[in-house]
Amino acid sequence: MFGAIEAGGTKFVCAVFDDEMKILDTVTIPTEDPEITMSSTVEFFDKYEIRSIGVGTFGPVEINPDSPRYGEILNTPKIKWRNVNIYKALKAHFDVPIKIDTDVNAAALGEYKDGHGLGKRSVFYMTIGTGVGAGFAIEGKTLYGLTHPEMGHVFIRPIAEDDFEGHCPSHCDCLEGMVAGPAIEARYGIKGHLLGEDHVVWDYVADYIGQALVMFNLTLSPEVMLLGGGVSQQEHLFPKIRAAFKKHMNGYMDHEVLNGDLEDYIMYPKNGQKAGLIGSMYLALQALETK
Amino acid sequence: MFGAIEAGGTKFVCAVFDDEMKILDTVTIPTEDPEITMSSTVEFFDKYEIRSIGVGTFGPVEINPDSPRYGEILNTPKIKWRNVNIYKALKAHFDVPIKIDTDVNAAALGEYKDGHGLGKRSVFYMTIGTGVGAGFAIEGKTLYGLTHPEMGHVFIRPIAEDDFEGHCPSHCDCLEGMVAGPAIEARYGIKGHLLGEDHVVWDYVADYIGQALVMFNLTLSPEVMLLGGGVSQQEHLFPKIRAAFKKHMNGYMDHEVLNGDLEDYIMYPKNGQKAGLIGSMYLALQALETK
Repeated sequence: MFGAIEAGGTKFVCAVFDDEMKILDTVTIPTEDPEITMSSTVEFFDKYEIRSIGVGTFGPVEINPDSPRYGEILNTPKIKWRNVNIYKALKAHFDVPIKIDTDVNAAALGEYKDGHGLGKRSVFYMTIGTGVGAGFAIEGKTLYGLTHPEMGHVFIRPIAEDDFEGHCPSHCDCLEGMVAGPAIEARYGIKGHLLGEDHVVWDYVADYIGQALVMFNLTLSPEVMLLGGGVSQQEHLFPKIRAAFKKHMNGYMDHEVLNGDLEDYIMYPKNGQKAGLIGSMYLALQALETK
Repeated sequence: MFGAIEAGGTKFVCAVFDDEMKILDTVTIPTEDPEITMSSTVEFFDKYEIRSIGVGTFGPVEINPDSPRYGEILNTPKIKWRNVNIYKALKAHFDVPIKIDTDVNAAALGEYKDGHGLGKRSVFYMTIGTGVGAGFAIEGKTLYGLTHPEMGHVFIRPIAEDDFEGHCPSHCDCLEGMVAGPAIEARYGIKGHLLGEDHVVWDYVADYIGQALVMFNLTLSPEVMLLGGGVSQQEHLFPKIRAAFKKHMNGYMDHEVLNGDLEDYIMYPKNGQKAGLIGSMYLALQALETK
C-alpha cells in the first residue's frame, strides 16, 4: 500500500491506496497547528504498511530533492507553518521513500497521468481560488528550478474601465491580485459566487485570466491548459476565458488546436477537485522509482 | 565528424567538428533563396564524413520529432522560406541522424552544456535583436510542446510617459513590439546603437525586459537567465535590467540568488554570439543518442 497527502491551506486530505490505484481509506484533517495536523496525519498512516508517500502541498515549499531543506514550508503567510518541514516530519515516522511537490504541480501530474492530459506530452494546471498558482508536468515530470514556479503573480494589463487597485500585497494588480477569490470579494464586500453570472466583474476576471493563459502558452506551449480551484467552478467563466485568450493571442500562433474553439484545450480538470490528491498518489509511485 | 548549422534569418553558419568538440571547418552562407542556401550548405558538408547534424534555426519551425512536418519552417514573414523543410532537405543528402531545434533553444542548450549554465539544472536564454525570442533547457533537454515557445510576445505594461504605440503586427506593444531592434529604430528613425547610452529609451527598454524576465522567472524558475542578440550587446543595459527585475519582483521570491545583486543571474551568454552554434553542435550529439 501507498500513502498520498494533499496538504492544503485549510485541510489535509490523506489517502491509502493499493497498486491498482484504488483508494482503501481516506481522512480529512484540518490544517491547524502543525504539530496537531502532522500527528493526526502520522496516526492515520500508522494503521497501514505504507511503502511510500507522495505529498502535494501548499507553498511556498522547497521541492528540490537535492536541497537540505527539501520539504520545508517557506515564507508562507500561515506563520505557524513557516519552516515546518513536512518531509522530515513524515520521514521521522515512516522510513519509506517520500516525494514532495507543490499542490499545483501534483494536480498537473495527476491530470497528465489520469485525466485530460492522458496521451499528451505536457499539462498546465492553474488553480484560481483563495490564491492563484500553477503547475506544469511534461513527460511525467513536474517543473521546478531555483524555486517552484509562482505563476499566479504574472502581470496582466488592467482594463481601462476597471478601477480596482488590486489585492496582492507584493504586486497590487498582478493576476492573483485581480482574480483570486479574496480579490473579487474585496471589490464588493461579498463572495464572488453571490454575484450574478452577468456581473461585469466576470468580464474583467475572464479577460485577465485569458491574458495570463496567453503568456503561459507563449512560454510553456502546453498541450492542454486546465483551470481548477474555487473561482474556476464558475462554469460560465470558461467561454469568456476562451474568448479572451483568442482576443489577446490575436491569431499569432498558427496551430490547429489554437485555431479551434479551445473547448478541449482550456478546460476544467477531468478529476475536478480531486486532481491534487490523484497527483499526490502518482508522486508516491514516483518516490519509489527515484528511491 | 559531426555537422552543426546555426540557421539564422540573414546567414547560415555551418561547422564541422570532431568528438572533442573542436571545430575543423566552418562557413557562413547568406540566407537567400532556400534552394541556393540549402545547396551551398549541403556542398559544404559533402566534403566530410558526417555522422550526424544539429540545426538551430530561425522560426517558427516544427520541432516536434513525432510530427510529419518535423523541420519545416512555418508561417515566417520570409515568404520564400515558408514550408521549406530543412530536415528533409538535409536528410535527402545525408542519411544520418539530424536534430532540429529553434536557434534560441539551441543557444540555451549550448550555455547549459558549455557556458553559464554549466553545473546548473536549467538555463533560460533570450535573444533581443531583430526579433525577441527565448529558449529554455532543463536537464539537457529543450522545451517544446504544442509548438515551440514564442516568449517574445508576452505582454508588458507600457510606462505611462512612453507614448510609443509598439511595433508588433500582432500585438502592437508586446515585449518584441517595444524592445526589438526595429521597434527601437521605429521610435526615432535611427538605429538604437546610435542613440546615446543616457537616452531615455534605454530606461523604457530595460524596464520592459525586466518585467518580462520577472514573468519568465515566475513561470520557469530558471537557474540562470541569459540575454543575447544585438540589443543585448548594449552592455550598459544590464544594470538597468537587473534593477527593473528587482523593482517589479518587489521582493516576492525569497531566494538567496534573487535576493542578491543578480550579476551572476541575469547575464550576457558566456559564448556570446556563438551560443547558438555551440548549441547546434550539442544537438548533433543528441541526434545520435536519440537515433
